[in-house]
Amino acid sequence: MISIKEVAKLAEVSPATVSRVINDSANVNEDKVRRVKKVIEETGFKPNEVARSLYRKSARIIGVVVPNIDNPFFNEIAKAIEDEAYRNGYRLTLCSSNEDVEKERVNIDLFASMNADGIILMTNEEEIFKKVESSKIPVVVLDRETAHGNEVACVQSDNYTGGRLAMEHLLNCGCKRIVAMRGPRNISSGRQRFEGYLKVCGERGVIPAFVDCGYDFEVGQSKTEELLKKYPDVDGIIAANDMIAMAVYKVLTRAGKRVPEDIQLIGFDNIKLSQLMTPELTTVEQRIPDMGRQATRILLDHIEGKPVLRNNIFPVKLIERETTRGGKQK
Amino acid sequence: MISIKEVAKLAEVSPATVSRVINDSANVNEDKVRRVKKVIEETGFKPNEVARSLYRKSARIIGVVVPNIDNPFFNEIAKAIEDEAYRNGYRLTLCSSNEDVEKERVNIDLFASMNADGIILMTNEEEIFKKVESSKIPVVVLDRETAHGNEVACVQSDNYTGGRLAMEHLLNCGCKRIVAMRGPRNISSGRQRFEGYLKVCGERGVIPAFVDCGYDFEVGQSKTEELLKKYPDVDGIIAANDMIAMAVYKVLTRAGKRVPEDIQLIGFDNIKLSQLMTPELTTVEQRIPDMGRQATRILLDHIEGKPVLRNNIFPVKLIERETTRGGKQK
Repeated sequence: MISIKEVAKLAEVSPATVSRVINDSANVNEDKVRRVKKVIEETGFKPNEVARSLYRKSARIIGVVVPNIDNPFFNEIAKAIEDEAYRNGYRLTLCSSNEDVEKERVNIDLFASMNADGIILMTNEEEIFKKVESSKIPVVVLDRETAHGNEVACVQSDNYTGGRLAMEHLLNCGCKRIVAMRGPRNISSGRQRFEGYLKVCGERGVIPAFVDCGYDFEVGQSKTEELLKKYPDVDGIIAANDMIAMAVYKVLTRAGKRVPEDIQLIGFDNIKLSQLMTPELTTVEQRIPDMGRQATRILLDHIEGKPVLRNNIFPVKLIERETTRGGKQK
Repeated sequence: MISIKEVAKLAEVSPATVSRVINDSANVNEDKVRRVKKVIEETGFKPNEVARSLYRKSARIIGVVVPNIDNPFFNEIAKAIEDEAYRNGYRLTLCSSNEDVEKERVNIDLFASMNADGIILMTNEEEIFKKVESSKIPVVVLDRETAHGNEVACVQSDNYTGGRLAMEHLLNCGCKRIVAMRGPRNISSGRQRFEGYLKVCGERGVIPAFVDCGYDFEVGQSKTEELLKKYPDVDGIIAANDMIAMAVYKVLTRAGKRVPEDIQLIGFDNIKLSQLMTPELTTVEQRIPDMGRQATRILLDHIEGKPVLRNNIFPVKLIERETTRGGKQK
């Protein structure tokens, strides 16, 4: 295997220049770029991550892309990332994309130009995964599963079990007509939770009942109205997440329905808000701060050349509060 | 007035080196630093901001210090800053300090080492203002008033009028025994709102009644319990902010008090949550996104050498919702 120094010698440039070409840095003159690329082609030189990072000037910056920092789930995750990064002498640079692919794309370029050491990505856009790959910055995917496969690692919750837990809990609480508000189908967490729900339906001989829903509060209100029209006999609702559960509660209250007396309600996430609201929300806990910290830890370990676990699935847990009537076993 | 080029000539260094010395950059050898400082002293050279920025390599980074990104108010502000920065080709680097002065101090150093173009500061620590001053990075103070005076500008709400509006509204709603939950006394917004409240008490011949309170949800619950013991006949509560109002609502509900039938309740901020909660919260609106955008706009204008307004007070507005019984004029 040929070394970076030998490539430099053959191309008559410094090893740092070879590194800059490998890392697609600006500020290398075109002639040198051509020479280095020619030598790489002729010798079959394959730079590994260690070779890359050896020559890359570390900025001690982690770039983070979240769909929306306004959403408490992402906000709590970003806070955990920031804490862990700070404890390790790294800074966080944040892009709240509003799911705007163009903004995500521009931000990946900015991260690259800032010499970011790594990226934590919470996006739905396959295109962005490709973009990150071409930027050659190591990436950890958080709260998402991707088919792309070039990420350093994935960190997510056991959403399937979460979907099961929610359905089993409402059945155990005596609900006869449970309706699931299904999360976005283009996001793995939404699909997995719904699969868990369906599995329990099959096991318990229940006919599935659901409405399609997103993850944002705004859509939750109209979807709850739709749900009440479609299933007037509903006595249990599985909300797509805690923000949706807040919206469900508002619409039910306005419609004169009592929670949990008339309709029981369970959320997903255990964002802080779920405990602050009145009544306190029964929910399925995701270990949000742990997930943020772990994603950061993995990225830093990888940057330092340590081996990391590729798939990181965090367990979920049922948190019983005031919107369901206690999990008496059926 | 001597120019930076003349200083460079006299010190026998390049103008860029003079700039680096002015900006306290690392990587200037001690001998050169000594020579440049000697010439500056002998000639009385005073570098202005334009001279500074001319030579400073822009990183197009804005550093932001918030006490706690978990708090929806700061979260919504940070989002607005990020939006405006992005639209102008700048990146945001975030420090959520948890009011840890040491963390704030380290972050100011990091901002400096990243060559940040400016800082937006939401902190209570006078010490940090001094630290920022010595870093020579332009700073805009947001949601705070400081006695320090070296900031480019201050951006805040008209908190005094906000305090007035809250008290006047509860009086107009027919409340006879109104208790104010006073915000932190070391934060200007808390002091100013309380002054507004006191002024209306004086005008309307009401004896002030209050408990001391912070801005975080957790403290809100215990302070509400204290309030109910101290003022059992309370029929109107002015919460220090919307998060505190959420806590008040929880404690009142548990104590069997109905809102607004038994006790009317008003918050402050108009964070999104105030409309999402059930019942929807009557509150005094701060123009949160506008304030974040304006702080960013001012910082960028200053960086580009444009004149800026030093004091920026945003008007506040009463938002009537479901926790008060309508503002019939008394």
